[in-house]
Amino acid sequence: MKLTRRVKEILSWYESDNPGTKGNLARILMEGKLGGTGRMVILPVDQGFEHGPARSFAPNPAAYDPHYLFELAIEAGLNAYAAPLGMIEAGAATFAGAIPTILKVNSSNSLSTTKDQAVTGTVADALRLGCSAIGFTIYPGSEYQFEMMEELRELAEEAKAAGLAVVVWSYPRGPMLDKVGETALDIAAYAAHMAALCGAHIIKVKPPTAAISLDAAKKTYEKFPVEDDAAKRFAHIVQACFNGRRLVVFSGGEARSNESMLDDVRAIHAGGGNGSIVGRNAFQRSKADALALLASIIEVYKTKV
Amino acid sequence: MKLTRRVKEILSWYESDNPGTKGNLARILMEGKLGGTGRMVILPVDQGFEHGPARSFAPNPAAYDPHYLFELAIEAGLNAYAAPLGMIEAGAATFAGAIPTILKVNSSNSLSTTKDQAVTGTVADALRLGCSAIGFTIYPGSEYQFEMMEELRELAEEAKAAGLAVVVWSYPRGPMLDKVGETALDIAAYAAHMAALCGAHIIKVKPPTAAISLDAAKKTYEKFPVEDDAAKRFAHIVQACFNGRRLVVFSGGEARSNESMLDDVRAIHAGGGNGSIVGRNAFQRSKADALALLASIIEVYKTKV
Amino acid sequence: MKLTRRVKEILSWYESDNPGTKGNLARILMEGKLGGTGRMVILPVDQGFEHGPARSFAPNPAAYDPHYLFELAIEAGLNAYAAPLGMIEAGAATFAGAIPTILKVNSSNSLSTTKDQAVTGTVADALRLGCSAIGFTIYPGSEYQFEMMEELRELAEEAKAAGLAVVVWSYPRGPMLDKVGETALDIAAYAAHMAALCGAHIIKVKPPTAAISLDAAKKTYEKFPVEDDAAKRFAHIVQACFNGRRLVVFSGGEARSNESMLDDVRAIHAGGGNGSIVGRNAFQRSKADALALLASIIEVYKTKV
Amino acid sequence: MKLTRRVKEILSWYESDNPGTKGNLARILMEGKLGGTGRMVILPVDQGFEHGPARSFAPNPAAYDPHYLFELAIEAGLNAYAAPLGMIEAGAATFAGAIPTILKVNSSNSLSTTKDQAVTGTVADALRLGCSAIGFTIYPGSEYQFEMMEELRELAEEAKAAGLAVVVWSYPRGPMLDKVGETALDIAAYAAHMAALCGAHIIKVKPPTAAISLDAAKKTYEKFPVEDDAAKRFAHIVQACFNGRRLVVFSGGEARSNESMLDDVRAIHAGGGNGSIVGRNAFQRSKADALALLASIIEVYKTKV
Amino acid sequence: MKLTRRVKEILSWYESDNPGTKGNLARILMEGKLGGTGRMVILPVDQGFEHGPARSFAPNPAAYDPHYLFELAIEAGLNAYAAPLGMIEAGAATFAGAIPTILKVNSSNSLSTTKDQAVTGTVADALRLGCSAIGFTIYPGSEYQFEMMEELRELAEEAKAAGLAVVVWSYPRGPMLDKVGETALDIAAYAAHMAALCGAHIIKVKPPTAAISLDAAKKTYEKFPVEDDAAKRFAHIVQACFNGRRLVVFSGGEARSNESMLDDVRAIHAGGGNGSIVGRNAFQRSKADALALLASIIEVYKTKV
Repeated sequence: MKLTRRVKEILSWYESDNPGTKGNLARILMEGKLGGTGRMVILPVDQGFEHGPARSFAPNPAAYDPHYLFELAIEAGLNAYAAPLGMIEAGAATFAGAIPTILKVNSSNSLSTTKDQAVTGTVADALRLGCSAIGFTIYPGSEYQFEMMEELRELAEEAKAAGLAVVVWSYPRGPMLDKVGETALDIAAYAAHMAALCGAHIIKVKPPTAAISLDAAKKTYEKFPVEDDAAKRFAHIVQACFNGRRLVVFSGGEARSNESMLDDVRAIHAGGGNGSIVGRNAFQRSKADALALLASIIEVYKTKV
Repeated sequence: MKLTRRVKEILSWYESDNPGTKGNLARILMEGKLGGTGRMVILPVDQGFEHGPARSFAPNPAAYDPHYLFELAIEAGLNAYAAPLGMIEAGAATFAGAIPTILKVNSSNSLSTTKDQAVTGTVADALRLGCSAIGFTIYPGSEYQFEMMEELRELAEEAKAAGLAVVVWSYPRGPMLDKVGETALDIAAYAAHMAALCGAHIIKVKPPTAAISLDAAKKTYEKFPVEDDAAKRFAHIVQACFNGRRLVVFSGGEARSNESMLDDVRAIHAGGGNGSIVGRNAFQRSKADALALLASIIEVYKTKV
Repeated sequence: MKLTRRVKEILSWYESDNPGTKGNLARILMEGKLGGTGRMVILPVDQGFEHGPARSFAPNPAAYDPHYLFELAIEAGLNAYAAPLGMIEAGAATFAGAIPTILKVNSSNSLSTTKDQAVTGTVADALRLGCSAIGFTIYPGSEYQFEMMEELRELAEEAKAAGLAVVVWSYPRGPMLDKVGETALDIAAYAAHMAALCGAHIIKVKPPTAAISLDAAKKTYEKFPVEDDAAKRFAHIVQACFNGRRLVVFSGGEARSNESMLDDVRAIHAGGGNGSIVGRNAFQRSKADALALLASIIEVYKTKV
Repeated sequence: MKLTRRVKEILSWYESDNPGTKGNLARILMEGKLGGTGRMVILPVDQGFEHGPARSFAPNPAAYDPHYLFELAIEAGLNAYAAPLGMIEAGAATFAGAIPTILKVNSSNSLSTTKDQAVTGTVADALRLGCSAIGFTIYPGSEYQFEMMEELRELAEEAKAAGLAVVVWSYPRGPMLDKVGETALDIAAYAAHMAALCGAHIIKVKPPTAAISLDAAKKTYEKFPVEDDAAKRFAHIVQACFNGRRLVVFSGGEARSNESMLDDVRAIHAGGGNGSIVGRNAFQRSKADALALLASIIEVYKTKV
Repeated sequence: MKLTRRVKEILSWYESDNPGTKGNLARILMEGKLGGTGRMVILPVDQGFEHGPARSFAPNPAAYDPHYLFELAIEAGLNAYAAPLGMIEAGAATFAGAIPTILKVNSSNSLSTTKDQAVTGTVADALRLGCSAIGFTIYPGSEYQFEMMEELRELAEEAKAAGLAVVVWSYPRGPMLDKVGETALDIAAYAAHMAALCGAHIIKVKPPTAAISLDAAKKTYEKFPVEDDAAKRFAHIVQACFNGRRLVVFSGGEARSNESMLDDVRAIHAGGGNGSIVGRNAFQRSKADALALLASIIEVYKTKV
């Protein structure tokens, strides 16, 4: 498979990584309908862990079946499919070689009163299941943030030595952050930057709002303002990811209308973001509707910027 | 021993597991009076650890003797017998090859003030004792839930590599859950789903009530209601176990009347659950009564759905 | 599965073994048409390694397919199937739980000029493939015999700790033994005894002839003669296996007529041997002929002694 | 990437392997111009080790450059590229993701007087370099054959656990074999069969001649003759590879004419072989000539059988 | 490269370190415009972690790009560049061998409410990235100070065994210290001394004020006063660093005017300090301004004392 110039350029940014990790990044970047463009759409299904099965799958009961989720990602022509251990195990042999997979190796749930996660998968699991990457969530700002970063360090070090890529979900929360703060522009940029500093190859953050949350940061943003425009905000996040030297994708968030999703996608694309990671907005729709929405998203990412 | 088509179908769901683990699942599924049906009845005796010996065995003092418990499971034609280390050690040689055993590798007790368990057995123990599986309890919602899931991850990884099966008791408890919440439908489904995501081969949960506990889940269940019928509730739990791709059995709970037990069993069977795990309702009855009840339960599971 | 008194008696001989190993011995002894009798018929297929594929399988080309061999053992109602790594790997998932398997962990071949074997499988392989035992060949008398016994010691120690059984093929050869000597009565008894001393649970030797090979032994056999009768010779081998406290089975040797095979089997049975391990005489016949012969052999072992 | 039915069928034969290994086999089978057909052409470049650089590369000095060899394999649309450590290291980052690679982990050379090889690479190397498989040579018949098989066992066990595939070069040589014997039909079939028994996923042997070498085998081949036709001989080798349940490819051997190469390829294809592994006949030609020959070979494998 | 007498003298102080560590210290001391003088200027960029990306880089957006920071350090002729994992990874290959790097292996952030840091890098990371040293922050006085010192002990032990140097950022904070206290003379000297006692090769502290913070220390400083002169205060810190036997450098602190910076530098130089570690005052200026300031600083350190 000949890599495109764009993918080769992106791989060149990961200059300290071994060929195994580069190969797995290439595998993700060359897969599916966006293969070769440097843009990605990823299907993540860890919401069953985070919110429970009914809240996740009742709107489209077909999605209770792990095979359905693999099929959805493959049929939609996505770049990768990310899920926790059991869900990958339930389909990894049937779909071996059919789509790059990301083993989500830590998980939280709605019954927890702490802002922490359990490590529920290993690098050895990722290798035996043929995954291209591990996925790990950090909660910058949480009282457990340092432990989480330290778990990430251990898992990432092992993953990189074994030629796997590392995807970091960076979701700020904790005593200093209210709901607005969690997606404020300064906080989102900070969360993305910390993931990059921790050695992530691909960073996942939520789309930022225009709010500025940290008092200490307000002066800076007043002096060096980010234009009040979604695309500019996404561009600021890209900047925070080593000025674009690290891939960054944005979550779709709660279920919402196609148009609302596509507005985000257009802004991500215009701002130079590397793509979307669309969970609930994909698997909670009927298959036909999900494929239609994903096709529209892919169409946006395929347009010339 | 020729496997039935049903058992072969069930084994096909465990597509990422090695032949050793498949063989041990087959061993459990082919054993006893329900062998080959895809339904199971399991005898678990960890109540001595959980509640103390007298509360467990005084109603039927024969059950103080570990050999009695093996014999009960064998004579009743059950699929497997599950117990902590010492109790398995006390009978494993006498009953070697006579019934598949599940080594319960963590245990709590009534003297503890925390919602945690001690890891009291190992995979090496399970191998030397000839067990087909390890059993592990998680308490989703407990303040120790993440540590418990991490212990499960380590033990399960080792067990799977050695060709053993992994049975997970998923019992929600903790600051967000009152007594009603612990067996609420949404919580039971959530607990079963988390066990599946953690890589369990067989999941054990308590029968769910009609209650919905988590505020965040109420909207979902209002919009996508589960019919107020026990069988439908069990079917919902089956759905939460990867749409039936993972075996799920239900505990019998506190000692109660045969008829009450059988009502549950009929509903489990109608709902597509894979069976019952009957402890106190078996060993706290006289042997004759226990065998009679277990025979009735098995009879239900043998009927065509 | 309730063990028979005979099988329980046999297990009682393995008094230093853990329940895991006892369970695997029970599994082998309770399987198939001879299940529970204490007699066994085992299908071994390592002749492809020993003699090459055509010499092994050309007479019945269906046997080139590893699935055929599993099926033959299962349909014939045998106790176990033994083969090297690749051949077990090629069917272990399809036939998981269907018949106990013995992983032959060392192998020789006809291109070798030395009387040694390569270790080609491990205890970890046996566990992941769900095998009940490992099989190992020693060549007592060979210039490599001590190394082979030392390899056996290491593998057997590991296998026993993991609850597996150990089957030893004990085939005398080496500078002190001519062709006659390799199957001489004194030598066969000696080989069986050394396997028992090395800790074998099941011993496989060739049927002994009436010859006495070692000069040093002749005086003894003259003084304490073994009657010139095949059954008495087999009984002598049984004696050498700790007076019957270790299971011993006899190989069928080169392809030959049914009647010649059955003569041996009758003598083994009369002499108290535990069964036959029939390779070429099974898989080199057409399936119908093989099933017929194996049924006849089983019939002999089922008769009251 | 949707796998073809044929590739899914092939993967089903590797039923004891984990999804990681299946994924890497899929990667090789889906790559290049033959992707999806179940046929393969592989470029191996270990001749520099075996015969020295000038004997290998002087006919086409461009091939001294490791990048040239990667490019040749990619431009020709081959399925994989196999080479020793240094040669993979010299291009693995530039061509990461561009073609599956096979790390040849043992190597011999022309300065050796023994029929053995040095282990020159590890599974960890293969992972960090992003290889899909390790490659290992055994010399059945050599006085070092058992040590080589034991090295293979260790490396293969580790590779399989890490989700890699195992390719075995099985080249008979040693005191019992003269030059004719090394490629005799019985010996080639035997060598292929032993590789399969050692757990190889892909087997590489030399094209067999019509000779029968082992005296012990002559009787068999006289009674069950293989027709004197190249395609029938290849079919016999396929038979020896578990009746086609293991992939087998054939080496091109010394540099020779296109027509002679293509004759072999047609026979391999007609006989059901899975492809060719073409070294010297590829890299010792000019790039244009090599691409032309490889295109012709691929064309043959694309025709309906 | 011939080491100067001064550098040899400095290395002689590290008499218990292995030649690897001495070599890495030499590498730092011989690099750049101050190479050989025993004075150093180091560029640290961990402010993105500490304060977020915008607060760090918005004033000079070029600094969002990790390559810019390497280039700045190299063009300015500095002795070393220090940064967290991701930022080193993003340039370590491009700038391999171009400037000594210090991997900052722990990091805090502005979303934390505790005075602790996460360990975000390892000695293995430092080795694979070609770093000359690890950098570690301790917060003497914090409620986490002992854990931090213990983490330092482990990392330093491993680093020294591997021939790396250890740079310790010693920043007092905690319940006994108010803002004035954190940079009070007695506290700064104390912090520097503890770093030396913990085995640091290079110590980084903030410039001390004239304040004395600890009541217990006031009597001593009254009896043995330090002259109220910046150079004397720096000399006191040097004294606290084993009377100059450990290298000590001083941070530049918040962005401020060139003249204010240079006043500090002159005092450090006069007091015998080993140099400056200039972050925000370097990368938050335009490149031209930063190079000009750094050149002025270097000029000061080059003057004869």
